[in-house]
Parts: sequence; structure tokens; C-alpha cells
Amino acid sequence: MTYRIDALQYANWSEKIFRQMREGGVDAVHVTISYHETFRETVLNIEQWNRWFERYPELICLGETGDDVRRAREEGRTAIFFGFQNPAPIEDDIGLVEIVHKLGARFMQLSYNNQSLLATGCYEAEDPGITRMGWQVIKEMNRVGLVVDMSHSADRSTIEAAEISERPIAITHANLHDWAPALRNKRDDVVRAVIDNGGMMGFSMYPHHLKDKSDCALGSFCRMIATAADRFGVEHFGIGSDLCQDQPDAIVEWMRTGRWSKQVDYGEGSAANPGFPPQPAWFRDNRDFGNIETGLRAVGFSEAEVAGLMGDHWLRFFDANFTPQPA
Amino acid sequence: MTYRIDALQYANWSEKIFRQMREGGVDAVHVTISYHETFRETVLNIEQWNRWFERYPELICLGETGDDVRRAREEGRTAIFFGFQNPAPIEDDIGLVEIVHKLGARFMQLSYNNQSLLATGCYEAEDPGITRMGWQVIKEMNRVGLVVDMSHSADRSTIEAAEISERPIAITHANLHDWAPALRNKRDDVVRAVIDNGGMMGFSMYPHHLKDKSDCALGSFCRMIATAADRFGVEHFGIGSDLCQDQPDAIVEWMRTGRWSKQVDYGEGSAANPGFPPQPAWFRDNRDFGNIETGLRAVGFSEAEVAGLMGDHWLRFFDANFTPQPA
Repeated sequence: MTYRIDALQYANWSEKIFRQMREGGVDAVHVTISYHETFRETVLNIEQWNRWFERYPELICLGETGDDVRRAREEGRTAIFFGFQNPAPIEDDIGLVEIVHKLGARFMQLSYNNQSLLATGCYEAEDPGITRMGWQVIKEMNRVGLVVDMSHSADRSTIEAAEISERPIAITHANLHDWAPALRNKRDDVVRAVIDNGGMMGFSMYPHHLKDKSDCALGSFCRMIATAADRFGVEHFGIGSDLCQDQPDAIVEWMRTGRWSKQVDYGEGSAANPGFPPQPAWFRDNRDFGNIETGLRAVGFSEAEVAGLMGDHWLRFFDANFTPQPA
Repeated sequence: MTYRIDALQYANWSEKIFRQMREGGVDAVHVTISYHETFRETVLNIEQWNRWFERYPELICLGETGDDVRRAREEGRTAIFFGFQNPAPIEDDIGLVEIVHKLGARFMQLSYNNQSLLATGCYEAEDPGITRMGWQVIKEMNRVGLVVDMSHSADRSTIEAAEISERPIAITHANLHDWAPALRNKRDDVVRAVIDNGGMMGFSMYPHHLKDKSDCALGSFCRMIATAADRFGVEHFGIGSDLCQDQPDAIVEWMRTGRWSKQVDYGEGSAANPGFPPQPAWFRDNRDFGNIETGLRAVGFSEAEVAGLMGDHWLRFFDANFTPQPA
């Protein structure tokens, strides 16, 4: 059995999108439920998901373990795994790590572009590495089964997180820096640190992370994946599309600026291009995962490798890392 | 197999008390984790329990279903079930019902002495019954498996809650009003409404609920239980000791006055006797459940009836009422 898993989406959720997930045969999606939200605001977002689970039980269900992906597949539904792009939801309280895990969170980024209480983000000028609280929180995340995600973190912080963490960590959504030298893409030493610890990286189709952005060719994207597989081993990679479907541009402002600045921060965009960029033609939404499969075959991946990249590698990772650490 | 379950305690928790639970062979305890606490303050109390679960895994574990009581018994531990004596933790947000259930809450009182957003408390002069929000919250509690507890509610509100609720409700800790006419004890029509709906009542050993208070004789308490069994059927009853062990008197002030009054409210006490009253000699703490068993046998209950009253009836109730309502 092969699975189709997307390790990052942040859409403007609707019945339409849930139906597209089913049409695209997507068995599981890691969805962002918090950028800069406090604990209470994050709980409100979970409440909103609970209402969707109650309203669309034939389309979606909460995912908490790898077995929930298998169950979702059997039942013809998509398992939704919660994650945070910033540690804002745990505020300054390490006890909230276990609470948010109990509420369903399975990934938490230690920083989002900026310095956090735990680690440095990839837009800061200086990266002093993992903080005192960061060290404690990584150990607590290890204990309960909340995965450290360093997608938006700076290099030194990421490498230190991989070293400190006793369990594999993840970069859920990014690409290779030498293919597309965006601040958010990852240099080889960073990828190496993550995979040496048993970790995973998901490849992003967010245009700012792509070579030639919205005009990126499917072949170029898939050749980048082949390069990564040659360099580091295919088993460490999957998809983390970073699909931000149907979002108004106000949302990309919230993602970039939250409440931390009175000035506009364009992040990966610019004053001339402040909004969400258009998706590449070969990946508009959840119905297009088949195009990626086709592209991966075209650059020479075997059927087993394609299955691994499209979901089986993430499922193995979910199985190992979402439950409490054995005592 | 017979189980020993206490359907209400609010102790100043410590390793000493957890060890006394084991010494007393107590398989499960419903513990109050909130009186007047907001949602965030309630989560802090759950965080404190998580630290105790991590620190004393050989003594206690979180209880979420009836099977957790069986597992705790097999492992020689006490299963801890969370509950609230007031709906303060859900604030004005019905979405928090499912959230607190996910975090482990299994009982919630709709009011505590005073009027709440949901129902009237037993100290109010007027009881207008279940509110608009109360009706909605009862249905949501039914859906997720959070039990309606009316221990501190007024009569009309209690009877209406029993009628509105599609699943059995509980009075976790009180006694018969015609045995000890305290405001908190229950008149026959209230008990009848609760048991007609399949509900349960736990008998309290809090001195203000006892005939002759701290001087109450064990025989008198057990004869009151025999009266209740004759009148309503033994299968609807169990123990809800209301043990408030090792608490400083500041806590009874918090229970009674919270933040709702600047004036002292003595509740069931008085200016001359404002603190916690002394426990009756035959029930000092968790090690004394054997005395109650002996007392129940002495008033003529069979071994099966004693087992039912000491825990098996509550276990049957836990099995039926802590999981989501079938669709």
C-alpha cells in the first residue's frame, strides 16, 4: 500500500478544498493552525477544526498517529494533523507542550523568521542558536511526541536543534538552497544535520521557494529532488507543499508581520509584489499530486521511490515520532 | 471483580495522599480541578496534574474511560478523572466543551452555589431553571461525553437538566435532604428526576452534609444509604466523599467566594466556624473506605450491593458516559 501525505498546507479551508483533497487521493495533511496566535487563540482555531470534523465526517478526521492515516485511507477520508509555524501557542510555559500535544499538535516550529523564546528565525542578522528555554522545550517535545520543525529557522539554530533533539526532527517545507537560493531554502550542512539525526524534509511548491518562482518547470523541481536523493538518500524526503490555497492577501501579511511590527514586512515578497504569488501551473491544488508523481517517474525514480516520496516516508516518520518517548 | 471508586475529592494533593489512595485500595477518584478558574487557569491545573503523573507513575495515572479504571487496578495504580465544580472553565464558549473533554474532563457542574451562565446554584433565592446557553451546553456535553453534575445546583435547574439531557446525569456528592436538611442535600423529587434519567448519586462525607456533622455516626450514614436504596434502587448510588484533605482554610474561602464577592461568604460554615470542619472519625482519608464497607454490611447490604455502592455502580456509569455519543 502506498500513501499520499502532504507535510504542510495552510489553506483558507472549505468544503471545496476538503473535496479536492479526496479527489487528489490525499490520505493525510499536516495543516498549520497557528502562526502568531497565543494559546487561547490557538484553541479557538482547534475549535474551528472540531466544527469542520463534525460537519464533514465523510471527508476529514483528526490525525494523531500513523495508524490514523491508515484508518483514514480505509475509510476514504483525509487525516488532518495539526502543527504550529511558531512556538507562540506555548507562550512562556513549558507545561503547554504536553497540553497542545494532547489537543492534537504534532509539529511545532521553534521559530518563524524572527527570534523566538526558543531559537532564531531565518530572517535575523544574528543566530545565537538554541536558547535556554529552547533546550528544555526540545527535551519536553521529545518526551511527549511533538516534532521539532525548523522550516523557518536559521542555520545554526537548526543544526543545534538536530544535535540536542533525542528524536528525529523535520524541515516540513523547504527546498535545496543551491537550487533556489531563497533565505528559506536549506544549505547542505543544514540538511545533513537534520537527516543525520534520522530526520525528514518535505519539498515545497510555494513559488518563493522555487527556481523561477511561479514559472518553475515541473522537471526542474523533480531534478532538484533527484539531486537531494543522490546527495542525502531518498528515504529522508517527502512533500510539504506549503499550499496556501484561496487565502486573501491579508493572510500573508498576518503570516509575515503578526503583531510584532507596525511597519510592513514583505518577507519573501516585495512592495511591488506583496501578496500570495500564483501557484505553478502543475500544482494548483490538492488534485495535482498526480502531476508530481509523473514528474518523479520522468526523472528516473523507481515506483517504490515515488511511493516513498509521495507519502510512505512521512508515514514511517509519523509512526515513529508522534507518540510519547518510551520511558 | 469489585472496584473502589470515589466520585469526588478535592485534596491538597501530595505523594502522601497518593500513597494513602493505594493503601486504601482506591482504583479511581474523580478530582476537582477547577472551582472558579478560567479556561487558562484550568489548563494550568491540568499542567500540575501532568507533572504529578510524570513524577508518580507507580501511584497514579490519568483516567479517561471505564477501561482505564480496570487497567489502573491491574497495574496497582489509582486512575484520576478530572472534573469542574462550576462551568467557569468553558467561559462563554461552547467550543471549549469538546476541548476540555479532550484534555480529560469527565464531569462538569452546571452551577456552583450561585447563578452561572448555564443554571442556578443552590444558594440563590430564585431558580429560573436552565438558561438558553445551558440548554446548548447540555446537548454538547451529551455529544462529547462530559457528564452533567448538579451537586451544587438548585432544584428546578437540576430537574430540568435531567429532562433536557439525553444521557444520564449525576449528583456526584450529596446526601438525602430528609436525613440532613442542608441546602446542598437533595430532596426526593430531585433524586427521582436524576435516577429516572439513568443517573447516579454519590454519598458525601463532608461534615456539613452529614447529620450531626463531624459527630455523625457511621451507622446513621449507612442507614441513610439503606433508606435511599429502598426508596430509589441501590443501583443508582455510590460514594462521592467530598474529601478535602490537608487543605488550608484559605481554600474553603476560594471555593465559597472565588472572585465573585468582596464580602466573606461562609457558605455552609459560619463566622464562628469559617474553616474546613473536622472529618468524622470513621472517614479521615483514603485509607478508611474499609470502614464504610463494614458499615454497609452491618445495615444489611449483600456483598454484591456493597461492591456496587463502593465502586461497581460508578464503573458502569463511567463505561456508558465518558465517550462520544454514537452518531
